[in-house]
Amino acid sequence: MTEQIMQEQAMAKAQVLIEALPYIQRFNRKIIVVKYGGSAMVDENLKKQVIEDCTLLKLVGFKPIIVHGGGKEISKWVGKVGMEPEFVNGLRKTDAATMEVAEMVLNKVNKSLVKLVQELGVNAIGISGKDGGLLKVTKKYSDGQDIGFVGEINEVNPQILYDLLEKDFLPIVCPIGMDSNYETYNINADDAACAIARAVNAEKLAFLTDIAGVYKDFDDPNSLISELTASEARELIESGYIGGGMLPKLSNCIDAIDNGVSRVHILDGRIAHCLLLEIFTNKGIGTAILGDKEDRFYHE
Amino acid sequence: MTEQIMQEQAMAKAQVLIEALPYIQRFNRKIIVVKYGGSAMVDENLKKQVIEDCTLLKLVGFKPIIVHGGGKEISKWVGKVGMEPEFVNGLRKTDAATMEVAEMVLNKVNKSLVKLVQELGVNAIGISGKDGGLLKVTKKYSDGQDIGFVGEINEVNPQILYDLLEKDFLPIVCPIGMDSNYETYNINADDAACAIARAVNAEKLAFLTDIAGVYKDFDDPNSLISELTASEARELIESGYIGGGMLPKLSNCIDAIDNGVSRVHILDGRIAHCLLLEIFTNKGIGTAILGDKEDRFYHE
Amino acid sequence: MTEQIMQEQAMAKAQVLIEALPYIQRFNRKIIVVKYGGSAMVDENLKKQVIEDCTLLKLVGFKPIIVHGGGKEISKWVGKVGMEPEFVNGLRKTDAATMEVAEMVLNKVNKSLVKLVQELGVNAIGISGKDGGLLKVTKKYSDGQDIGFVGEINEVNPQILYDLLEKDFLPIVCPIGMDSNYETYNINADDAACAIARAVNAEKLAFLTDIAGVYKDFDDPNSLISELTASEARELIESGYIGGGMLPKLSNCIDAIDNGVSRVHILDGRIAHCLLLEIFTNKGIGTAILGDKEDRFYHE
Amino acid sequence: MTEQIMQEQAMAKAQVLIEALPYIQRFNRKIIVVKYGGSAMVDENLKKQVIEDCTLLKLVGFKPIIVHGGGKEISKWVGKVGMEPEFVNGLRKTDAATMEVAEMVLNKVNKSLVKLVQELGVNAIGISGKDGGLLKVTKKYSDGQDIGFVGEINEVNPQILYDLLEKDFLPIVCPIGMDSNYETYNINADDAACAIARAVNAEKLAFLTDIAGVYKDFDDPNSLISELTASEARELIESGYIGGGMLPKLSNCIDAIDNGVSRVHILDGRIAHCLLLEIFTNKGIGTAILGDKEDRFYHE
Amino acid sequence: MTEQIMQEQAMAKAQVLIEALPYIQRFNRKIIVVKYGGSAMVDENLKKQVIEDCTLLKLVGFKPIIVHGGGKEISKWVGKVGMEPEFVNGLRKTDAATMEVAEMVLNKVNKSLVKLVQELGVNAIGISGKDGGLLKVTKKYSDGQDIGFVGEINEVNPQILYDLLEKDFLPIVCPIGMDSNYETYNINADDAACAIARAVNAEKLAFLTDIAGVYKDFDDPNSLISELTASEARELIESGYIGGGMLPKLSNCIDAIDNGVSRVHILDGRIAHCLLLEIFTNKGIGTAILGDKEDRFYHE
Amino acid sequence: MTEQIMQEQAMAKAQVLIEALPYIQRFNRKIIVVKYGGSAMVDENLKKQVIEDCTLLKLVGFKPIIVHGGGKEISKWVGKVGMEPEFVNGLRKTDAATMEVAEMVLNKVNKSLVKLVQELGVNAIGISGKDGGLLKVTKKYSDGQDIGFVGEINEVNPQILYDLLEKDFLPIVCPIGMDSNYETYNINADDAACAIARAVNAEKLAFLTDIAGVYKDFDDPNSLISELTASEARELIESGYIGGGMLPKLSNCIDAIDNGVSRVHILDGRIAHCLLLEIFTNKGIGTAILGDKEDRFYHE
Repeated sequence: MTEQIMQEQAMAKAQVLIEALPYIQRFNRKIIVVKYGGSAMVDENLKKQVIEDCTLLKLVGFKPIIVHGGGKEISKWVGKVGMEPEFVNGLRKTDAATMEVAEMVLNKVNKSLVKLVQELGVNAIGISGKDGGLLKVTKKYSDGQDIGFVGEINEVNPQILYDLLEKDFLPIVCPIGMDSNYETYNINADDAACAIARAVNAEKLAFLTDIAGVYKDFDDPNSLISELTASEARELIESGYIGGGMLPKLSNCIDAIDNGVSRVHILDGRIAHCLLLEIFTNKGIGTAILGDKEDRFYHE
Repeated sequence: MTEQIMQEQAMAKAQVLIEALPYIQRFNRKIIVVKYGGSAMVDENLKKQVIEDCTLLKLVGFKPIIVHGGGKEISKWVGKVGMEPEFVNGLRKTDAATMEVAEMVLNKVNKSLVKLVQELGVNAIGISGKDGGLLKVTKKYSDGQDIGFVGEINEVNPQILYDLLEKDFLPIVCPIGMDSNYETYNINADDAACAIARAVNAEKLAFLTDIAGVYKDFDDPNSLISELTASEARELIESGYIGGGMLPKLSNCIDAIDNGVSRVHILDGRIAHCLLLEIFTNKGIGTAILGDKEDRFYHE
Repeated sequence: MTEQIMQEQAMAKAQVLIEALPYIQRFNRKIIVVKYGGSAMVDENLKKQVIEDCTLLKLVGFKPIIVHGGGKEISKWVGKVGMEPEFVNGLRKTDAATMEVAEMVLNKVNKSLVKLVQELGVNAIGISGKDGGLLKVTKKYSDGQDIGFVGEINEVNPQILYDLLEKDFLPIVCPIGMDSNYETYNINADDAACAIARAVNAEKLAFLTDIAGVYKDFDDPNSLISELTASEARELIESGYIGGGMLPKLSNCIDAIDNGVSRVHILDGRIAHCLLLEIFTNKGIGTAILGDKEDRFYHE
Repeated sequence: MTEQIMQEQAMAKAQVLIEALPYIQRFNRKIIVVKYGGSAMVDENLKKQVIEDCTLLKLVGFKPIIVHGGGKEISKWVGKVGMEPEFVNGLRKTDAATMEVAEMVLNKVNKSLVKLVQELGVNAIGISGKDGGLLKVTKKYSDGQDIGFVGEINEVNPQILYDLLEKDFLPIVCPIGMDSNYETYNINADDAACAIARAVNAEKLAFLTDIAGVYKDFDDPNSLISELTASEARELIESGYIGGGMLPKLSNCIDAIDNGVSRVHILDGRIAHCLLLEIFTNKGIGTAILGDKEDRFYHE
Repeated sequence: MTEQIMQEQAMAKAQVLIEALPYIQRFNRKIIVVKYGGSAMVDENLKKQVIEDCTLLKLVGFKPIIVHGGGKEISKWVGKVGMEPEFVNGLRKTDAATMEVAEMVLNKVNKSLVKLVQELGVNAIGISGKDGGLLKVTKKYSDGQDIGFVGEINEVNPQILYDLLEKDFLPIVCPIGMDSNYETYNINADDAACAIARAVNAEKLAFLTDIAGVYKDFDDPNSLISELTASEARELIESGYIGGGMLPKLSNCIDAIDNGVSRVHILDGRIAHCLLLEIFTNKGIGTAILGDKEDRFYHE
Repeated sequence: MTEQIMQEQAMAKAQVLIEALPYIQRFNRKIIVVKYGGSAMVDENLKKQVIEDCTLLKLVGFKPIIVHGGGKEISKWVGKVGMEPEFVNGLRKTDAATMEVAEMVLNKVNKSLVKLVQELGVNAIGISGKDGGLLKVTKKYSDGQDIGFVGEINEVNPQILYDLLEKDFLPIVCPIGMDSNYETYNINADDAACAIARAVNAEKLAFLTDIAGVYKDFDDPNSLISELTASEARELIESGYIGGGMLPKLSNCIDAIDNGVSRVHILDGRIAHCLLLEIFTNKGIGTAILGDKEDRFYHE
């Protein structure tokens, strides 16, 4: 490689850093909740990249909180210990034995993420919703039927998160909570991320998913929406065009916006460094849901 | 019950509280590391009592840190997932698969203790030695043979514990660490408790065990020693009368004393509230190991 | 004593401490104002016990403030210096000379309490209402007649108490104040305790008295009331059954409740450790006055 | 008075304030211990002026601590209560009864000074050496004879003073302490001021006395010394020309200098505002004792 | 000079200091904005005295902020560099070249004041309205005509002043600001002082001017007003008797009072130490403008 | 541009940010002193880029301090005001009039840099060595001849810098100081940067110059040295191959290293974003001078 080309490449690098300046400023000391799940948790490369992104956010002055699930790993271990799944209304019933395995697996995943962050030289701390009484739940029923230890969050005590952020840790949360009798419950990770983002008044809530974003028409790959307001999202839901898995996610987004989160993102977690790209470049990734009054200046 | 008897009982209660006064003062804002293991982890009643004791210590102004093991549970789950144990020099080899199960189980135990403390209204946080880079290890060999992911602590970074104590949490630590390549290792819980007590300059280190204490002559149940100095402990070890399991424990005790811990206790975890009895009453429980210069005024 | 009996006694002790847990939590960092007077100030044993109780409360995390009188000692010293008492409407007139003696005696009592607390290893500081401008008074008249330097509190400046509590002192206050001309006045100790409890928003105000509590019918020793609301107390006063000395005390209690103190107790100061018994056991001592809306769960 | 004269007077006033500038800077946030005693405690005018001086020092940013005696008042009250003085070696014996009166009187004086400071709008707090364990003493003997409760300071715990200064109080201390059995002792006020100045590393220690200062020759009124080093003071004592009352005072001064106090002053407390004059003007009052190495630039 | 006269003089000095006591208390930790301009900036003696006054205010616990102009110096340097003044409506037009010189000169004056304060041993820091984004302006037009880079303040960001005061600096501000395009503008120093006083909620705003104060009748030297309320000032303006230069100044005063400044003073900067005389003596200098409700107790 | 190319470009950007991670960590909260001068101060583009670089460093957690000169601008204005330069030993003599102009110009430059930083949304504060007594100098002579107000730094008081950094400002310093008589002196900007870097124990000191770095042989453009130790630098100077302007700069570098600065860089300020390139990429720019013991791991 000639000296001149090296020179040009170096300059291009500097340019990228300089372009990051306004974004670094915009989110300085702001809390960003990242719901981490899907393929990005399975593929080791993507996993490393998500953690690199979160660590960089931390280092340049943001306050990321990672909330993760562990779906596929749980199924794997439930099988390993030889348990027979039981179903209610087509939903897996989380009986006490399943809950025990689920908690073990989620904590394992949790600490494996801690390890990745520590490896990059940043102090992480892995907690569940039990620690410091973070997540308080009530039992959730499916059409009135008992589906076991599945909880609905009815209170978030964010003090532990504020304490850890003040002490400069990157908190990594697994979605387990306790009810008023201190029984352990599994919680949907999307719900947990959303409830936490609301409780800490996050500036941003980002869902890493396995699709490109929200489509106007689920069957038309060209109908990807890059930005829509909470009202528009409501209309879209009412229109009936929103597909299965996206429905509760979009409801969560609307709920977050309604409760003080400034901006929610549905990102394609299969794209490397999708978090960085979303935050630091003017190339929008996925779909942004924003309040009705906010100017749409962001990705212009 | 007559009014007078009730009156007398009430007065007796007040008396107990008043007798606790000097002990509360003595340990005010002091760190007490409790190695929690053995029968006290199996029997649900004892478990509840140990946690009650630690919570009370926290509430009256001490700073307890719980370090726990999980031995029997690990064996149970290793079996559950159908793994065949492998042995080296008669020691179980912790291969990667076993380590994975061990980590899951230890974290499960960890969070179950968090639950018990939260239930009593005190904020706990369960961490492993991975969080905040608390425990750094090197691989341990057994007579030169590879026994897998068993680690020897070579560095403790106590900042995370200071941060959590400052924020008024009761830290509960499970003995897992990482080496310089961020690989996960299992650590002997006694070693972990001892290393942590040294690193935070604990006032007291208490081992909950399944025996009554240290005996002068292992075969003579009347030879229980209630107090001995580090020097005397060394002589005792050299005398050859110290039985198998007690040997590494006693070495740990001596090591802790040599490194600034004021007092180490080997307590009989099978006795209800042994921690409280040891600390708050003038009835010594088990064996205390102390520095050579310290006055033996304590239980007189 | 056999080993087994010792064992049982020790266990009983631990049980008492464990039973104290919820009470320690309930009052953690809460201010408790103790009006200390009557027999408990004369009997050396009771004196020691009251101070032990307050010191224990301090050590387990409460914030006690002691307000004391000095009645009998004042009379003794007024006599010693050969002064002739003068009376107005049957009330002793506090002329300048009497005030001088009263102030000396109250400060002497004040420092003797400081001494007892220091002896137990806790830092106390004895102040009067002059220090830091704590108690500001106006002259009080008895049916329009001048009774000398007897003051009615019209302003409390609690900053000095907050400062001392923050610096971890146990404040001991004697009921002397100054008017707007910085003249010295004697204040009724019950009034002072009540005004201070209101000003610092105390969680609890406890009067150590020489009777068992409030009686429904003053002549019926079986009519002791263990709990009544402020409204019920008002009705009781209107009923005319409340005896002489109890009347102003009960008015003070109602006043305190009306002004934000959560709970007021009239305790029998002649019972050893009555404070501890009231706070730490489920055996109610004396009479509790509480807000109308509060649940009566306390001593059940 | 003509406008011009008024103008000139105003200007002269401004000039005085401007001249104070370097002194205000020099002592900013420095601790100045004032031993207050002698005539300045008897004459009401002088009393007011001393307090005005200390209050001004406080307001312009110094940290004065007043230590006072109460000699004449004690004698008066000992007489009032009809006690017969007992003498040992010509020294009044402080038996228990005398001590009780002395403590009452000293606290009365203490609170009367608090009153004067509060009147000037500054927060004062009156303490004795009992509060917060400030002054710890051992019994003092006079030529081996028991002279009762007269104490020699063997330990100062200055924490209470630091706490009060941090909270912006002007501490006023009366010279009473406790021994290791928590018995009450009277302390010479000069000794107390000196010990406190040493313990808090005071910048300055000023004794208000009833003489003009130290004389080279006690019989020659023209031999007043305005400045001498600790070494010179030692020589002077050895020379034998130092009169009775001055001897222990001068020893105290030397002791203070030897222990880190920067400068000690023996001031004539009979001169109005002698403290201000000493500190704020270039007219030296009384005698300054300084370390051997310090430049004598001060009053030039 | 005889000893007695010296004594008397010293005493008189002490008296002046004592008289300052209530004023020192009144303004303790209060912000005082001083608009420094006119003759007091030209005469080297007056300059030194103004700075002495401000430094003394700082040292005795006030928080002065100096805002200065630089009019005559600017004209001098504009001439020096050979620029031809251009006029619009009789007002000098501040074109880019003039602005450049003005900024240089104002900063030079600014640092010369820093030097004088540092010389007196107090830490000063000289800033312009550019630093920390202190003064944000919009372009000002004169009867619709462009007069160049003359700005009107539309936002004050006082954080930099709070930060500097917290760090114990004496801030010295020159009246330059930036518009939303970060262009540099000159600002009228009176306007800047007024806007800053409002933004920091100053206790006092003092204008050093070249006249004795406000006159009821501009032509009658005996009609000097020593005190008037904002309402009275408004009436006075409407009466038409207020002379040219005083009009905007008085409007500024009213504006400051209306926006939370407690008291505004128009002082005769030609009188030595006019600031000290105004604040520390009972001889009022110039004219005080106060809120309508404030008592006129000040100079009585 | 096709979607795929955009995708690749975005990914490349993310990659650059991720590569910055270890550097961001390495310099987190470290002070970096940037000597800003030469062409980079003249070319508007380079100027903007230098400021962008410093602002980015600030935002990602470093603590940059800019020290700047103003040479060419000073000459321009000295001419503008029609002054005749006077020379001593071929050096321009800085008489009082020249010093006045120099101070004006340096402050103008200073505030123009403040403006650029504020424009990027970061709070800057422009100071000279007069503010807070930052730079104390003595007169410098040239071969014994008086060259006017040219100062040599003999003391740095870094408190003002610590205060401003704590309050999150980016300090911009112009090289003017005062001697013990508070006279104003011009200081060589390289000297000022070096003295400040030493005083604040900077992690890094970077000189923006107009050459590519240090050459082994000044006449051989291929002999650019990318890294040398302080010892090697000393040898190089002794070798006599170091050209004129580089000599004092290299001496300054050695001096900085000898006094605790970890690493000094001589950068080519003519290269865009040379600061970022040096710090964030593995392409070394210019010459690094490091301590003798430090590993040369940096640019490998």
